Amino acid sequence: MKNKIDVNYSLYLVTDRGILNGRDLKEAVEEAILGGVTLVQLREKAASTLEFYNTALRVKAVTDKYNIPLIINDRLDIALAVDAAGLHVGQDDMPAHIARKILGPDRILGVSTANLKEALKAQEDGADYIGVGAMFPTISKSDTRDVTLDELKRIKESIKIPVVAIGGINQNNVKQIIELGADGAAVISAILGRKDIKQAALELKKKLNGDS
Amino acid sequence: MKNKIDVNYSLYLVTDRGILNGRDLKEAVEEAILGGVTLVQLREKAASTLEFYNTALRVKAVTDKYNIPLIINDRLDIALAVDAAGLHVGQDDMPAHIARKILGPDRILGVSTANLKEALKAQEDGADYIGVGAMFPTISKSDTRDVTLDELKRIKESIKIPVVAIGGINQNNVKQIIELGADGAAVISAILGRKDIKQAALELKKKLNGDS
Ligand code: NI
Repeated sequence: MKNKIDVNYSLYLVTDRGILNGRDLKEAVEEAILGGVTLVQLREKAASTLEFYNTALRVKAVTDKYNIPLIINDRLDIALAVDAAGLHVGQDDMPAHIARKILGPDRILGVSTANLKEALKAQEDGADYIGVGAMFPTISKSDTRDVTLDELKRIKESIKIPVVAIGGINQNNVKQIIELGADGAAVISAILGRKDIKQAALELKKKLNGDS
Repeated sequence: MKNKIDVNYSLYLVTDRGILNGRDLKEAVEEAILGGVTLVQLREKAASTLEFYNTALRVKAVTDKYNIPLIINDRLDIALAVDAAGLHVGQDDMPAHIARKILGPDRILGVSTANLKEALKAQEDGADYIGVGAMFPTISKSDTRDVTLDELKRIKESIKIPVVAIGGINQNNVKQIIELGADGAAVISAILGRKDIKQAALELKKKLNGDS
């Protein structure tokens, strides 16, 4: 595993089996990595612990193959069991400072935030990066809160750890997010909801690199 | 925490908030302990991770007060986060040998089984005890498989670790289970579904002790 300070947050894929239309998750993740995804978060809200564990093992075989860090959503037990690179917690998940204590210093810890107060708290609690969103209207996640572009800018100016914007980010608006200072864009449907997953990631990568 | 070989499995309470009719879980657990429960398993199938964590902290305050081991159902992350005495996994949860590796040797690991093959596997995987059931028809758990009294006897004769019978056990049939050699009876509704929780536990305790 790479040193966690070298992690590239620029194009952060968050998985959602619900929008894959029956396509295999492992294959979808591989396509996305071939298109330029730099980080993968496995998010399984409906799976049993055993299903989540088995899925995480399968997906980790792909992320390991390409040396891409795998982050587990919510479930510290799964992150430890599959030796994932890190854990991402939301505000309804385990408190970040408890998660940090159990994870140890070497794994990546990310925290979902929707305002400056939560962002500062996450940083204090030992997060390595924060997610900020939802930036734009989104259909992938139902439990989101709106964040303005101004708030994103304010957060970025106020904290030291990397900021990954999330929520409705796609090929059309990703440039806006990066211009406001975000270190990365987290996407779900703009990659996994597209027929050609690799192509979708390539297009986002292009926009992130400043090509029009 | 007591040495885990000293654990008394005889009257094992498994929680279910759904049958409490709005009564407070922490208070219900305290009543059950005052009635003689020797072990408590916290089972929260619908809670968010944060809710589960907070509930576990509240319930642990009670179990600690009476020096009763608290076992967390399914979620190794919660067990570690609240420093519980142990973890109980079912056949849809994390594989027992993985759970054992992360838990370490000192915490209690229990595994749900429904036949001799699973019982032997659990013992081999590092379980400290097994649950066997469902022994009788039950309304508390929906994902159960039937186990005959003969199979319980066969399992008890074939493995070395303690055997806790579960599933529809109540004041009328608990004696049968113990006479077949079970080291304990796990109950949900026969305690938590009763109006007087302490009294319900006392009655079970009496039957376990051989009083008629
Ligand atoms: Ni202890």
